[in-house]
Amino acid sequence: MKILIKDVVILSMAGDDQPIKGDILIEGDKIKQVGKQLFDEADEVIQGQGMVAMPGLINAHQHTPMSLLKGFSDDLKLMDWLTQKMLPAEAKMTPEDIYWGAKLSMAEMIKSGTTAFADMYIHMNEIAAAVSEVGMRASLTRGLVFLEDDGGKRIAEALELIERWNGRADGRITTMLGPHAPYTCPPEPLIDIIKMAEQMSIPVHIHLAETKEEVIKIREKYNQTPTEYLYHLGLFERARVLLAHSVHLTRRDIGFLRGIRGGVSHNPVSNLKLGCGIAPVIEMINQGIVVGLGTDGAGSAATVDMFEEIKAATWLQKLDYGDPTVLSARITLQMATINGAKLLNIEDQTGTLEIGKKADIILIDMKKPHLQPVHHVESLLAYSVNGADVDTTIVNGKVLMKNRKLLTIDEDELFEQVAARALKIVEGI
Amino acid sequence: MKILIKDVVILSMAGDDQPIKGDILIEGDKIKQVGKQLFDEADEVIQGQGMVAMPGLINAHQHTPMSLLKGFSDDLKLMDWLTQKMLPAEAKMTPEDIYWGAKLSMAEMIKSGTTAFADMYIHMNEIAAAVSEVGMRASLTRGLVFLEDDGGKRIAEALELIERWNGRADGRITTMLGPHAPYTCPPEPLIDIIKMAEQMSIPVHIHLAETKEEVIKIREKYNQTPTEYLYHLGLFERARVLLAHSVHLTRRDIGFLRGIRGGVSHNPVSNLKLGCGIAPVIEMINQGIVVGLGTDGAGSAATVDMFEEIKAATWLQKLDYGDPTVLSARITLQMATINGAKLLNIEDQTGTLEIGKKADIILIDMKKPHLQPVHHVESLLAYSVNGADVDTTIVNGKVLMKNRKLLTIDEDELFEQVAARALKIVEGI
Repeated sequence: MKILIKDVVILSMAGDDQPIKGDILIEGDKIKQVGKQLFDEADEVIQGQGMVAMPGLINAHQHTPMSLLKGFSDDLKLMDWLTQKMLPAEAKMTPEDIYWGAKLSMAEMIKSGTTAFADMYIHMNEIAAAVSEVGMRASLTRGLVFLEDDGGKRIAEALELIERWNGRADGRITTMLGPHAPYTCPPEPLIDIIKMAEQMSIPVHIHLAETKEEVIKIREKYNQTPTEYLYHLGLFERARVLLAHSVHLTRRDIGFLRGIRGGVSHNPVSNLKLGCGIAPVIEMINQGIVVGLGTDGAGSAATVDMFEEIKAATWLQKLDYGDPTVLSARITLQMATINGAKLLNIEDQTGTLEIGKKADIILIDMKKPHLQPVHHVESLLAYSVNGADVDTTIVNGKVLMKNRKLLTIDEDELFEQVAARALKIVEGI
Repeated sequence: MKILIKDVVILSMAGDDQPIKGDILIEGDKIKQVGKQLFDEADEVIQGQGMVAMPGLINAHQHTPMSLLKGFSDDLKLMDWLTQKMLPAEAKMTPEDIYWGAKLSMAEMIKSGTTAFADMYIHMNEIAAAVSEVGMRASLTRGLVFLEDDGGKRIAEALELIERWNGRADGRITTMLGPHAPYTCPPEPLIDIIKMAEQMSIPVHIHLAETKEEVIKIREKYNQTPTEYLYHLGLFERARVLLAHSVHLTRRDIGFLRGIRGGVSHNPVSNLKLGCGIAPVIEMINQGIVVGLGTDGAGSAATVDMFEEIKAATWLQKLDYGDPTVLSARITLQMATINGAKLLNIEDQTGTLEIGKKADIILIDMKKPHLQPVHHVESLLAYSVNGADVDTTIVNGKVLMKNRKLLTIDEDELFEQVAARALKIVEGI
């Protein structure tokens, strides 16, 4: 199968490539050629006039099924939000609800230009099945908390997920180990998980320092910061990591993160909406730490549109520094693409438009009043585009959306399923 | 002419009205009826299933022609942005450029659900002509700076604008007097303008305390804060005001603003993007000051989508307070609708969906993955909707957009005009 995208403005995001006008040839699941006037007998030709082609966005921190709960519990204190609304609702979710919730999130993501995501949740078999079916790329993690028992059953599920799904769905699915957070994982089980991760060469996806409350809790318990806690247990030395949030870090904490394999998923919309604070993104970048972007679950962020995260990320650093020059359009777009690929440990496969990489490509329709005139493509992509401007989404060489129509998800069936299920889940809460 | 909107979820924004399912009947330029199953012989029936009807959004601070310059000068220091890019570009704009730039902004605004706006710029005749033609509602102001001369020519233009356009275009156009800012208006001309405003009963639209630099400048010059400066010149006592930005206010400043007629336009995206700071919105609201929302010009904000401002406004206060309960979805939606109407001094005409008010109505299409399921309509509107979800925009009883197609602007002609003009304006800058 060959697909030719013609006459499109190409922003490859490789190195310091500038936008060029040209064609992209896809063969099978890969980018075969990028250049001017490629003549080839393609099975499908996509006319790209007035559009920009860029690497698909990578959402580095998601809890996909929470899309069933968006708008259900806004404007509440974080602990009320969690204990009175989210946990009771999640406890009522069936595996089938999880499947449909994940699919709803994927529909949102494809429609707003995301091609790959990292997910941490429960009932991961259902989510993996949905990923396989829908055609996205994903790094899946069974979330592990250790509050009341030894977590043996959950660890077994985590290992089963890895065994059953790592490298499957044409290689689109990879897996991680997911100890939930310092405040839900005591040292003993956490050390065990770190050992497993090292032995199996599987990265660790964990929440870190999302709230001030977490910092206080860990200080009381271990007389350490959450980052020191993970450092002293050997996490950063032994495993590749995907650290979600990392809002409340001391300078010393950032020092401990220097040289880690993997990096940090910054989730500014969720941090804003829950009033958590501003992550020290610039300081981390200055120390060579890879920072990508994620939405967190729609239950907190209310949107999984990565273009919102791009705007929020650059806005927040400009605000924090009182300086509009920091976190430029280019750097923020890198966070949402190649840096995300690094966090998911798939940077050899995706994150830029380069020959030989998997064809994970989005086309953005610039023929809109809010995207005209075009002075600088990158500025418009970072500051003016929203998810609805994505016209076409391609993952692994397969078109998942064209002219804004989803090709692997039946939207009517989806809406019917989620409406009925959401109603049942929140009943009485 | 009668238009019937059928089977729609109506969020009137009047008092503490909750969303109801029903119909809206428009007769001429007014809302005739709101209720269940209105049977009437309408000239046009709009099917509202799966949509939400709410009052059109009101953008309380714009510089419409700057849409020609969006993406032209991002990631620069405010003073570099202004002196090296914006001012030289603006100096090259012809009256025709202004007309097309204003029209481009209006296309963006209609497509993202804005029905009325307050504008401060130059060549206001051209902007008024565009407003008249396009069908939006607007409060127009000739910006007045007094740096090198007595500004006599500009004041004459300001008075001509009022004389010629106030109350025109079927009453859609109103006018204000626009002394630009404390740092560009010395006491003498400012006192004159305040007197004129009082005598003519015309409100004053002015920038206030946008940056720290302004506060320092006014302190050096007058040993006052910018707010004290305006207070002591009698502005708040003598005139109704529309104060743009108001980021850097002391507690004492907020005290001086208590009881003003009019209020403050909060422009969070512009404030973020230029690194200006967070306005004390909660404190102002607590003192009974009316706070609405504006985008500022697209040259700074890069977007004139009011749904971005709604999100940014509530996010910033939640961040500033470390408390997700502040500035709820409802309050933020009020800021973008009825409060905006109060700022434009047209709250008797628009800002809510009530019988007898002008028919300024938008329909939002909720049949989208990111807007399903629907737990709380207001939450989705504030946190999840973006401008592209607006399906239909009605102003003064006239449909300006339907199924996302603009009915009073030719988009192809618009894009052609703005591309050529924008290129010429920035050439050599």
